[in-house]
Amino acid sequence: MEFQQIGILRTPFTEPTDMPIQPSSARGAIGRIEIDPAWEAALQDLDGFSHIIVLYHFHRAPSPRLMVTPFLDDSPHGLFATRAPCRPNPIGLSVLRLCRIDGVTVEVVDADMLDGSPVLDIKPYVPEFDQPSGPVRCGWLDKGMDEIAVARSDDRFADSNND
Amino acid sequence: MEFQQIGILRTPFTEPTDMPIQPSSARGAIGRIEIDPAWEAALQDLDGFSHIIVLYHFHRAPSPRLMVTPFLDDSPHGLFATRAPCRPNPIGLSVLRLCRIDGVTVEVVDADMLDGSPVLDIKPYVPEFDQPSGPVRCGWLDKGMDEIAVARSDDRFADSNND
Repeated sequence: MEFQQIGILRTPFTEPTDMPIQPSSARGAIGRIEIDPAWEAALQDLDGFSHIIVLYHFHRAPSPRLMVTPFLDDSPHGLFATRAPCRPNPIGLSVLRLCRIDGVTVEVVDADMLDGSPVLDIKPYVPEFDQPSGPVRCGWLDKGMDEIAVARSDDRFADSNND
Repeated sequence: MEFQQIGILRTPFTEPTDMPIQPSSARGAIGRIEIDPAWEAALQDLDGFSHIIVLYHFHRAPSPRLMVTPFLDDSPHGLFATRAPCRPNPIGLSVLRLCRIDGVTVEVVDADMLDGSPVLDIKPYVPEFDQPSGPVRCGWLDKGMDEIAVARSDDRFADSNND
């Protein structure tokens, strides 16, 4: 399957090491999505939504792995039980707060992505679609939840570390 | 960018018309994700999570459009302000309840996807990552919210309708 870049992410984080690992640990970080002018009309009415889902390419992720030891644990877990970037299809997903749209520039808050990441899609966040009803369990992650806000990446998923 | 199919979705919905438009309108529908055996080990520990995010290919979506009239409204909106499948990168996203994992078969509930959809990624759903803090506004969708549970697709995004 062929996918195309429809824009680019601009964030304060220029290296895959020492950056927040999720939007919840990037609170307040301002980012911009610069959309390709060909898609400007497709942004119409997006500004009525307070939050958006951004799909982007983990463009500096290392090769895919079956098992990874994520930032929030010391034990290896199956890749699909983690949010590590070294996936068979390295697609990142972030739920971001939308500040404003000015032409082809979408300004967002809590931007935890790497600067220069190619954008694949923007969807409006809709709680009725995207929020589970009923209780949520988070397996191995439940015990590390307190650390998310302060956790930073190290070089384990940096592109220079292709083991 | 090249992406690869890592599995296939099996659901009760074999045609893009007359199907639920979101997981919240497919409550109870059982689906299966059949993962390629090469990725079986990557499923380890996923069963500790109650919900998963599935990214898949809208493989029968028509050509991309800038403006669409979605199922829940009578007026056109910019494509990125909708969840319509006719996107520049036709990637679907569904938050599903995980029932159980048996080998390479992941059984899910609230499966709103088209049978045969190629799977691109599975991520654990983590409220701390994926749920916005603070109030959420849903623009044009706020007024149609009562209809989601009963809304069904028609042929406007069917592959036979490539206008």
